[in-house]
Amino acid sequence: MKAVRLHEYKRPPSVDEVSQPDLESHDDVLVRVGGAGVCRTDLHLIDGWFADVMPTETPFTLGHETAGWVEAVGRDVNHVAVGDSVIVHPLKTCGTCWGCRHGEDMYCEHSAFPGVNTDGGYAEYLRTGARTLVALPDGVEPAGMAPHADAGLTAYRAVRKAKTVLQAGESVAVFGAGGLGHIGVQLLKAMTSAKVIVIDPSPAARDLAASVGADVTLDADGAAETVLEATGGRGADVVLDFVGENGTPALAIEIVRQGGTYLLVGYGGELQVPTMLLILKEVTIIGNLVGSYGDLSELIALAAAGHVELHTVPYDLAAAPQALDDLDNGRVRGRAVLIPNTH
Amino acid sequence: MKAVRLHEYKRPPSVDEVSQPDLESHDDVLVRVGGAGVCRTDLHLIDGWFADVMPTETPFTLGHETAGWVEAVGRDVNHVAVGDSVIVHPLKTCGTCWGCRHGEDMYCEHSAFPGVNTDGGYAEYLRTGARTLVALPDGVEPAGMAPHADAGLTAYRAVRKAKTVLQAGESVAVFGAGGLGHIGVQLLKAMTSAKVIVIDPSPAARDLAASVGADVTLDADGAAETVLEATGGRGADVVLDFVGENGTPALAIEIVRQGGTYLLVGYGGELQVPTMLLILKEVTIIGNLVGSYGDLSELIALAAAGHVELHTVPYDLAAAPQALDDLDNGRVRGRAVLIPNTH
Amino acid sequence: MKAVRLHEYKRPPSVDEVSQPDLESHDDVLVRVGGAGVCRTDLHLIDGWFADVMPTETPFTLGHETAGWVEAVGRDVNHVAVGDSVIVHPLKTCGTCWGCRHGEDMYCEHSAFPGVNTDGGYAEYLRTGARTLVALPDGVEPAGMAPHADAGLTAYRAVRKAKTVLQAGESVAVFGAGGLGHIGVQLLKAMTSAKVIVIDPSPAARDLAASVGADVTLDADGAAETVLEATGGRGADVVLDFVGENGTPALAIEIVRQGGTYLLVGYGGELQVPTMLLILKEVTIIGNLVGSYGDLSELIALAAAGHVELHTVPYDLAAAPQALDDLDNGRVRGRAVLIPNTH
Amino acid sequence: MKAVRLHEYKRPPSVDEVSQPDLESHDDVLVRVGGAGVCRTDLHLIDGWFADVMPTETPFTLGHETAGWVEAVGRDVNHVAVGDSVIVHPLKTCGTCWGCRHGEDMYCEHSAFPGVNTDGGYAEYLRTGARTLVALPDGVEPAGMAPHADAGLTAYRAVRKAKTVLQAGESVAVFGAGGLGHIGVQLLKAMTSAKVIVIDPSPAARDLAASVGADVTLDADGAAETVLEATGGRGADVVLDFVGENGTPALAIEIVRQGGTYLLVGYGGELQVPTMLLILKEVTIIGNLVGSYGDLSELIALAAAGHVELHTVPYDLAAAPQALDDLDNGRVRGRAVLIPNTH
Repeated sequence: MKAVRLHEYKRPPSVDEVSQPDLESHDDVLVRVGGAGVCRTDLHLIDGWFADVMPTETPFTLGHETAGWVEAVGRDVNHVAVGDSVIVHPLKTCGTCWGCRHGEDMYCEHSAFPGVNTDGGYAEYLRTGARTLVALPDGVEPAGMAPHADAGLTAYRAVRKAKTVLQAGESVAVFGAGGLGHIGVQLLKAMTSAKVIVIDPSPAARDLAASVGADVTLDADGAAETVLEATGGRGADVVLDFVGENGTPALAIEIVRQGGTYLLVGYGGELQVPTMLLILKEVTIIGNLVGSYGDLSELIALAAAGHVELHTVPYDLAAAPQALDDLDNGRVRGRAVLIPNTH
Repeated sequence: MKAVRLHEYKRPPSVDEVSQPDLESHDDVLVRVGGAGVCRTDLHLIDGWFADVMPTETPFTLGHETAGWVEAVGRDVNHVAVGDSVIVHPLKTCGTCWGCRHGEDMYCEHSAFPGVNTDGGYAEYLRTGARTLVALPDGVEPAGMAPHADAGLTAYRAVRKAKTVLQAGESVAVFGAGGLGHIGVQLLKAMTSAKVIVIDPSPAARDLAASVGADVTLDADGAAETVLEATGGRGADVVLDFVGENGTPALAIEIVRQGGTYLLVGYGGELQVPTMLLILKEVTIIGNLVGSYGDLSELIALAAAGHVELHTVPYDLAAAPQALDDLDNGRVRGRAVLIPNTH
Repeated sequence: MKAVRLHEYKRPPSVDEVSQPDLESHDDVLVRVGGAGVCRTDLHLIDGWFADVMPTETPFTLGHETAGWVEAVGRDVNHVAVGDSVIVHPLKTCGTCWGCRHGEDMYCEHSAFPGVNTDGGYAEYLRTGARTLVALPDGVEPAGMAPHADAGLTAYRAVRKAKTVLQAGESVAVFGAGGLGHIGVQLLKAMTSAKVIVIDPSPAARDLAASVGADVTLDADGAAETVLEATGGRGADVVLDFVGENGTPALAIEIVRQGGTYLLVGYGGELQVPTMLLILKEVTIIGNLVGSYGDLSELIALAAAGHVELHTVPYDLAAAPQALDDLDNGRVRGRAVLIPNTH
Repeated sequence: MKAVRLHEYKRPPSVDEVSQPDLESHDDVLVRVGGAGVCRTDLHLIDGWFADVMPTETPFTLGHETAGWVEAVGRDVNHVAVGDSVIVHPLKTCGTCWGCRHGEDMYCEHSAFPGVNTDGGYAEYLRTGARTLVALPDGVEPAGMAPHADAGLTAYRAVRKAKTVLQAGESVAVFGAGGLGHIGVQLLKAMTSAKVIVIDPSPAARDLAASVGADVTLDADGAAETVLEATGGRGADVVLDFVGENGTPALAIEIVRQGGTYLLVGYGGELQVPTMLLILKEVTIIGNLVGSYGDLSELIALAAAGHVELHTVPYDLAAAPQALDDLDNGRVRGRAVLIPNTH
């Protein structure tokens, strides 16, 4: 079968002919890949950013946003059957450690990350574990869902936490209306009745945010004053930060109300705040990983019900190098998805 | 001033000339009434249903759904000012008992219930306590909001509890799409992303439910099978029962999923269920009173943002007997509201 | 190996020589049994109570409270190793259904119940799935822990829910201080700071409750008045009912405070209450199954730290018929445990 | 009456003869002071630390940890009566703002802080509002409770939050076993079943912690390794930081487990952490103010039930300058309390 594999850091991956994987464990499932999302993390992987923190033996197959159809199942698999449409959770988890037993798969002590430290979904077939698979509802095409396995899932987890603290009539400030942010806005509108205030320096991003339901969009300049004004001096009940650098943590602490919640998703910068201020504002700061299996199930249900729109651009599997180059050069509007197989 | 007062049970109330109330406590507020909702409970009061459980000295002024403008304030009142538009929470509470200190005003050990056991809002002016008043946002007319003080508030409290347990992609079965139910459906759509399944024997009620956003509407006959089918055999994650009699409790226990939640709002019947069944289904059953002050604040924010539509029919204060008669004879479409004063 | 098997309902089980089970699935584990609790449910099984609701092909091996040492593991098992001391959760679950993925193993759609509908732990060896095994801390003997797999686990789940609602200074009324109740009292004292009021008609049970930490013990006669008095007229914040019949549901609704919680564990009777009363008291009623895997892990941690004392009486495996007869005739003080193997 | 008043910053307060306060509002209460705790904040006040952030007109009466007996009540006061023993919550709050209505009195928009920005409890009588008063149970002496109004209350609020996240068998690391910390340890033992690990560089503080129930006490050197070891590499489930400076925030982030909670009470330093680390560990950081009225009620119930021991040292009101000097020079073991009146 064909697979897009990274042989050397800082060199483009190549389209190789490799042998199709077999089932090994009784819990294994073979997925015929119908869509594989192309993500900025793939560019970082190729550039070698993760070579030190998560060293992986090359060559390996890229791809961590995968959806498709079940081709074969191990003897102990009972929640999906051959022919089912499925989306693949990005982490392959053990099922028995503390995290797995408490619904927090992301904390799995024995996880593998296909497409990052083992073979991923840029291929005709992917061998995965039964625990990774969420069945897609009837009539939902895998290719259109694939990017939810990472981008959507990360936004969902943070919004789910926002939902638990937001009461009717409250407001949430969203930093960043890019790939994750514009999904986050749609989820906030679907899952809460909060007023959604989006802050982004890019006019195009603000237009996108407005088009998917943001109640207010603001430039970063003067945002603090405007948010305080728009909330009667109280501040935002929740700040949802998809940026996490370039001053957003300080802005978040400034505009979140006393007793409010700051949800951090983006990263790159530093949070630096006097302990005195954290205490006087009695703020809660919460870091967010990609979502759990339960989160992915819930997100797919929402997406299938039409609550989240994703714009995708299809590429042949063999065109993966082109898709990566397009992404790297800002030529993809929406999300590039490789299509190794059609139904 | 004019006030509509009940002099004797089972006799229509009369429109009397009485003296305008004065401020007594430092926490008192005088409200110039702009709208007073006419409620089925008023008919029950007149009929003497509450004569035994909550005996009240006659004559007294009816009206427990009141909104208007602040006319005068006591020396310790600082959260509303003369001229403000306000809605009046139906219970006058002490502020210092356990319930009041924990945000559960409804459990107040020293409460009064204006319009039920003390003078209410069917009058040109109402003396109330500062604690009852929620300020209305700019531009919101009191008369249109008045019915939220009871009907809307009761639906809101139950939906707020439903919101805390409903996850994305889950479903809620609503029993009854009448006065409270049709508000409940709108609140569920605004505050959650759940699939809303309404069950009501009346085609007109089902039409109303569908027009305000219900995803599915069902007749009571065969509802159990249909709900189980529509949820893949799992049952409804939440049942929200605005009826509470004629078999709805048994139906609720039947269709709620294992580990699900049954929220009871309507009353009149009996819940009768083997303890074994409660344990095997591990169901949670929750009774619901009218909402707290915090609930009313949140509901008003939602209503002001356009998430809840109420249809109201205005009557002069002096036409109260006519309004009550119209209500009693099914001639009111929506909610009758007396208008003692215009701005 | 030896196993105690039921061949026919209403006849005592026999001690048979059967072949030792092998590993079948990659997730299977073979446990060398160190202790098998003898439970009243075993008597009910023998008497045929479950023949209709959960029909099981005879003969099968009894025993659903099992602990021991890992003898062999399948290729995919990584959280326990040969030689580890373990306790066995009573349900063998699939790991991929909704319940399993959300930490509510008890709702598993594909579960087996060893000792009830498949071979259990009254044997030298038990084949089980990796998902059932909780590792015991160093130095903890399996035989002393075995009864926690059912009796302790059921009490723990209910007390864990009580813990989430009980605030400092509040009170909990416990109905029944027998097998589950006296564990429940110890758990309440360890996990909360609530005042524990035990109600039981038996003086011996009340003495036992007092000896394990109950703050107040009451006879059932006049209990309602006494609880109301002891709580300043407020009622109990939580009622924890290990009886569930003979009038306890009605008593629970009577003495629970407005806004309080009634946790139902025992069964046999019926809950019958006007919906009006549920609404006026705004009570929450929660059914409770046996605990989840996470519950069992937490309980074992508590027991290992010395927070729960269980009195056990050892019997040889071959003496199982004697142990069952002793239990049936009230000759067991504490919990009978069969000992098929010593370390 | 006598009152201890600050006339000028950086000068000791003097014992003045002033007129006894009268009731002004219908909600006012006059308290005959039975005990007034002497707190390090009083030293900071005298030194002028708060002169800029919370400027107060001098002279004013010090004292923000007050307990005593009700001497007179305004016409609207109904939850305490003349002669009742009471403790005074440190903040005088309005009762109608968002914070007050949601049980978070500390966020009150119109609060006064007696002893800090208005006359406090170093006096024979204190005029306060009804909302500040928690009734003491029968037989509880005000003088022994007074320090709970600030020191105990701050510890309680943080431990209450810890309680909601700690499950049975989990562990909490406590930084600092001084005035607040040693109360915190007692509350953790009473309210949770968690393993309490105290970290403090002072051997005396560690001895104190051990004597009130800490399971493990550690020097700060090497604490990170020891905590990780003691928790099987997992880290502490909760970190409760009563220090908040000198590197404790960094240590907290290091030793808290993935998905764990860091509760910050002490202040003075800075929290500085890469956003990437917050996300990978998915940690929750929560600031903590002094507790609410509800918190104080619950703490008093715990203290009255014997769960918290406070060591107090009595001084005459006129000896206030001596008490302050003793505190400043480390000559007070436990908490100094001025005794303006005995019963």
